[in-house]
Amino acid sequence: LASRVGPLGTTVFSEFSALALKHGAVNLGQGFPDFDGPDAVKEAAHQAILSGINQYAPSVGLKVLREAIAEHGARFHGQEGIDPDTMVTVTSGATEAIFCVLLGLVDPGDEVVAFEPFYDSYDANIAFVGARPRYVPLRPPDATHATWWFDRDEVRAAFGPRTRLLILNTPHNPTGKVFTREELAFLAELCAEHDVKVLSDEVYEHIVFAPARHVRAATVPGLAERTVTVSSGGKSFSFTGWKVGWIIAPPALRDAVQRAHQFVTFATASPLQAAMAVALRLPDTYFEQLRAQYLARRERLLAGLAQAGLKAHVPEGSYFILADISGQGLGDDVAFCRHLVTRVGVAAIPPSVFYAPEHRHLGQGMARFAFCKSDAILDDAARRLKDGL
Amino acid sequence: LASRVGPLGTTVFSEFSALALKHGAVNLGQGFPDFDGPDAVKEAAHQAILSGINQYAPSVGLKVLREAIAEHGARFHGQEGIDPDTMVTVTSGATEAIFCVLLGLVDPGDEVVAFEPFYDSYDANIAFVGARPRYVPLRPPDATHATWWFDRDEVRAAFGPRTRLLILNTPHNPTGKVFTREELAFLAELCAEHDVKVLSDEVYEHIVFAPARHVRAATVPGLAERTVTVSSGGKSFSFTGWKVGWIIAPPALRDAVQRAHQFVTFATASPLQAAMAVALRLPDTYFEQLRAQYLARRERLLAGLAQAGLKAHVPEGSYFILADISGQGLGDDVAFCRHLVTRVGVAAIPPSVFYAPEHRHLGQGMARFAFCKSDAILDDAARRLKDGL
Ligand SMILES: CSCCC(=O)C(=O)O
Ligand SMILES: CSCCC(=O)C(=O)O
Repeated sequence: LASRVGPLGTTVFSEFSALALKHGAVNLGQGFPDFDGPDAVKEAAHQAILSGINQYAPSVGLKVLREAIAEHGARFHGQEGIDPDTMVTVTSGATEAIFCVLLGLVDPGDEVVAFEPFYDSYDANIAFVGARPRYVPLRPPDATHATWWFDRDEVRAAFGPRTRLLILNTPHNPTGKVFTREELAFLAELCAEHDVKVLSDEVYEHIVFAPARHVRAATVPGLAERTVTVSSGGKSFSFTGWKVGWIIAPPALRDAVQRAHQFVTFATASPLQAAMAVALRLPDTYFEQLRAQYLARRERLLAGLAQAGLKAHVPEGSYFILADISGQGLGDDVAFCRHLVTRVGVAAIPPSVFYAPEHRHLGQGMARFAFCKSDAILDDAARRLKDGL
Repeated sequence: LASRVGPLGTTVFSEFSALALKHGAVNLGQGFPDFDGPDAVKEAAHQAILSGINQYAPSVGLKVLREAIAEHGARFHGQEGIDPDTMVTVTSGATEAIFCVLLGLVDPGDEVVAFEPFYDSYDANIAFVGARPRYVPLRPPDATHATWWFDRDEVRAAFGPRTRLLILNTPHNPTGKVFTREELAFLAELCAEHDVKVLSDEVYEHIVFAPARHVRAATVPGLAERTVTVSSGGKSFSFTGWKVGWIIAPPALRDAVQRAHQFVTFATASPLQAAMAVALRLPDTYFEQLRAQYLARRERLLAGLAQAGLKAHVPEGSYFILADISGQGLGDDVAFCRHLVTRVGVAAIPPSVFYAPEHRHLGQGMARFAFCKSDAILDDAARRLKDGL
């Protein structure tokens, strides 16, 4: 074993999906829909396979998809001027994209600032490139903060001479926070001051609930020239298993990421790229419906959790809800989630795994529930929680 | 830019495919077929998409594919006892698999032994993990050697106390060498002596021409317990663009690779995994025909090269031919290949890029031509070469 993988266990998603299966639990753990995306997109994949789009795509991605990514960025996020030839690389999911950004931009010994809780691959990937993480806590809503928030002094303190990259994630997994333009403007100033690049993971860009609005980080003044946007089609089109992701960045940054990408996977499944191009060009109504459906699912799960006596933070975006489990008398989040999956028949994710070891306690009073599930499943979960808790 | 990607240019494959397109050249450069694999496999992908295999696969891969990989290893390569649950991980192509083996097994400062010429991602990936390559030249056939060969003393000299991994590639790209059981037995002994692990890249396992026979490295005594076999469906089933690869390894080694893989791409396109399971279970006749067709294509291209006055090494395996260009008076391999693609209308790959900088001269008298092309294309290329050289 190489020392970089020595400390790693199995991802919490794999672990709890396996437990859910074993115990016949309703799986509100790992974030994947139990429904598929549009038939038109499936049909586009079929047509691509039939028409012979089955050999290596260019390493940067099929041109038709890079063009669709650029158009989509302008149409929904006001990001004008994305050149599909010099500013886009298609990757095998956002996970690969994130790793390629780190490989392309961060040297051993560099520091990477990120908010915690964080998506688990960030921490592993920072270790893989030999860099050091500096985590800044997101704080839960309280009397003076309507949403998750951060202390600006704590962010300032995390930046130093070795800081090379800031990792953003908006909408944020697992808190559901959607970063405001004002927050991003503050971060932009700090990054400019320290000449720090930004990775902005925006895979939940279309799952945002009013009054919150998604702000693409790269459209904030001062961030455009230093930001690599990462996204994917998995969440927006309910095809998490297709693993088509991408990055958008200024040419010099895209070039750095591409140099890594060509030697990580080289290219991404061609027919699924062709289908994703069709997906990104779906009419506005598709995206409005997606949002409306997720809003209804969010309300349904919130109601179910409330009936089971679980208070929850209302997420502004993403398809996750963090519920307060501190009063349940079942121990910390890991103990609670184990109890839940084995005894109550519902899988959830213990959020402490999204914190650095020394900050684990910040996540130990919560459990993360996914609401990317059909009504029947959400109702079944609610019933089990009410009966079992 | 991180320093690890600073020295990297665009891959030679992307460069020459782009040149081929620009100049309307026949593309015998990058190795991808200009025909697709079996309709039954396409239909399996379609069925998988229709039947809802569209969300995240398990990170280790769909069970049905892992089972098919195990069966296939026993059926064709005499590799018995592959446990699909503990010895297989599915990856997003062999390229990702190779990188995950290095991430999982090799520490910064370690040494990796490989034969040169080498597939270009090996060298980049060795640098990505902070290790040092030790290259051993493969020597061309000569009066006393019917095939490409290596000097055993040179291999011995490359092994030392820091050696962690030996990279094998059989059938070998770009030489077409198929390693014999006896050669592998020698390497097995050396690896045992130095406690060195083996990565065996066998993506051309089904493209081998009698009297040569493919020997799966992991079936050689002494190698089973230390070998990670890497392969993919791209070449065997003519779907290079689907990017479904895998590794087979003893549980402890598979575990190390899997720990890396879960944070590199996490999982691979689910519907294409399901289709690859069908492909691996095609009847023996499919594989016999594939081989017969490639044999005919090899003969066709060899004849075309001969007519153009290019002598060539006859490959025992893979779909590549190295031709002798030293007498052409057009400079080294890079100059020759540039001339070829711009003036003659045929793209080939300059093999010196598959050598370490200090050994470039060993590749400068050759050009690599791919014969994974339809007869009409091979004939067109032959005509252009005859007219243009
Ligand atoms: C790659 S599996 C994890 C899916 C996901 O994004 C989550 O559950 O947080
Ligand atoms: C990943 S593109 C290169 C394809 C190939 O294996 C080759 O041409 O050598």
